[in-house]
Amino acid sequence: MRILMVGFGVVGQSFAELIMNEAKKLDHDYGLRPRIVGVVDKHGAVVVPDGIDIPKLLESKRISGTMKGEGDWEYHEGVSALDVISDLDCEVMIETTPTELSKGEPGLSHVRAALGAGRHVICTNKGPLAIAMPALMELAHHNDVIFKFSGTVGGGTPVLDFAKKCLEGSRIKSISAILNGTSNYILSKMASEGKPMKDALAEAQKLGYAEADPTYDIGGFDTACKLVITSNYVLGTSLSIKDVNITGITGVTSEDIQRAAQKGNVIKLIGRVGSGARVSPEEIPLTHPLNVSGTFNAILFETDSAGDITLVGKGAGGKETASSVLRDLIEIRRAFAR
Amino acid sequence: MRILMVGFGVVGQSFAELIMNEAKKLDHDYGLRPRIVGVVDKHGAVVVPDGIDIPKLLESKRISGTMKGEGDWEYHEGVSALDVISDLDCEVMIETTPTELSKGEPGLSHVRAALGAGRHVICTNKGPLAIAMPALMELAHHNDVIFKFSGTVGGGTPVLDFAKKCLEGSRIKSISAILNGTSNYILSKMASEGKPMKDALAEAQKLGYAEADPTYDIGGFDTACKLVITSNYVLGTSLSIKDVNITGITGVTSEDIQRAAQKGNVIKLIGRVGSGARVSPEEIPLTHPLNVSGTFNAILFETDSAGDITLVGKGAGGKETASSVLRDLIEIRRAFAR
Repeated sequence: MRILMVGFGVVGQSFAELIMNEAKKLDHDYGLRPRIVGVVDKHGAVVVPDGIDIPKLLESKRISGTMKGEGDWEYHEGVSALDVISDLDCEVMIETTPTELSKGEPGLSHVRAALGAGRHVICTNKGPLAIAMPALMELAHHNDVIFKFSGTVGGGTPVLDFAKKCLEGSRIKSISAILNGTSNYILSKMASEGKPMKDALAEAQKLGYAEADPTYDIGGFDTACKLVITSNYVLGTSLSIKDVNITGITGVTSEDIQRAAQKGNVIKLIGRVGSGARVSPEEIPLTHPLNVSGTFNAILFETDSAGDITLVGKGAGGKETASSVLRDLIEIRRAFAR
Repeated sequence: MRILMVGFGVVGQSFAELIMNEAKKLDHDYGLRPRIVGVVDKHGAVVVPDGIDIPKLLESKRISGTMKGEGDWEYHEGVSALDVISDLDCEVMIETTPTELSKGEPGLSHVRAALGAGRHVICTNKGPLAIAMPALMELAHHNDVIFKFSGTVGGGTPVLDFAKKCLEGSRIKSISAILNGTSNYILSKMASEGKPMKDALAEAQKLGYAEADPTYDIGGFDTACKLVITSNYVLGTSLSIKDVNITGITGVTSEDIQRAAQKGNVIKLIGRVGSGARVSPEEIPLTHPLNVSGTFNAILFETDSAGDITLVGKGAGGKETASSVLRDLIEIRRAFAR
């Protein structure tokens, strides 16, 4: 299966490494022989119709930060992703450029172009989905291609597929979830060590759990994106991020956390859909299944007949998210085979 | 689809109620029209080839404790399940008789007979699987029928299907789990209220969480059954309960629990497979994903690429377990359709 990768950061590189290491297993178990025929990042593009030499590609990126390498492939400096998407023969595009929430770009244009050109798409970029998921689903349907985005929610934890594949026959009445590891890390540290928010945030930044500008995470926007994607996929809603009532954790004080603790509670940043969609800090009991610590994510499905079911996992990480991309690819391969 | 129900206790009755209430949805979503054509319990059998009137059946069982009812069906007092299994025309047998661990009977004979007669089987009885799962899987394979048992592990929480359907492309390196709600309730009460085991057990018995003879639960045997089933299904092992090293919670004292608490730990009854299979009380940190309270179950899959993923849910309950039976039936229906 010929793959074009748009974006080649941590997730993209981890994916390339994963399919290289698992090549035998993938062929044996799923008849899947992935071949990366093109890679575009913000600097330029590499195109090799017979399949790129993955070790050399990773080495080049590691040493120079670009894919220029040592010249046994053609490197097209400054070429745009849209040009490659329209020109390159392939079956699947994997979109891993960074999330942007005002217009969802450039990911949104990439996904639109690829779906429109009849490519299956795997996307780990939340922007296009937070902005225009219903339209993209429709576009994929119209072009009879598969559009998957497991890596957008829960990193390597198969949140979306779980709800679709494992809860058949039950109705999901509501979803409540901790979907942002950064916020959860900060709130956990504030609770366990009595730290004020600014110290916990600084520590998270030092450990690489939070960005220099942490607004996207601690402002609740990342949680809102993931909530929109989960709700649309699992409950069949047609939300965009504008439909979510969002409150981040910046207003949570050490005193709030101590007061909650005295009642046997913790404060968590929770996204919730059922009647309406919102993200806000909430007090939950210490014994609640969503009370996970550190950078964990947790998502609770309230069902009519199977009870409340919670999935807990590491919500981020390049290697983990790459495993979600691979699962999506296996699903595309299987649909092909039918 | 014509169904024979063997055993008609809480799970069986909940299942009958569930398919009655969900009849429209099941037909619409899955083209599934389940029809109960026979029910056998320890008192006798009812056979109605056109489908039993479920409300009347439930009413009869509720009032008299038997299925004798008011006579608009033939009630065969004292007839054996094996006779009905061999004589009745049906596609699926649902086995919900109680778990027995010395020989797995009478469930084992029921399952063998049904598979041998070319019936698909859904089983919530752990006995036959704890004793002879590899042989039963082989028998199902040989007869080209489907053998499902989702309700044996996790009640309504789709533990087995999760591992099979949602973790493709990853290797599961080990499984560790809390699989017995009774033991977990007792240990939780001992920890949160400083109660000695005998008081916590008495309370669990009063609330209906523990049997008069609690050996099966607190001796670790229930956990071991579920561990065997999960390991064989998910990891492809060929274990029986004899292969599990089992220590229950009867030796755990309040002092042990307090000592653990001083280190920020809790004591839980954990089943574990990876290298070897064992069930024993273990100390884990308060922040560990398996630290669930009350009657919850939790199962952690350690994967190579997707990280550690934990599923938490109510591990028992008639209604919840019936939802697992229904999921199995939907899967059988789907395989039929292909």
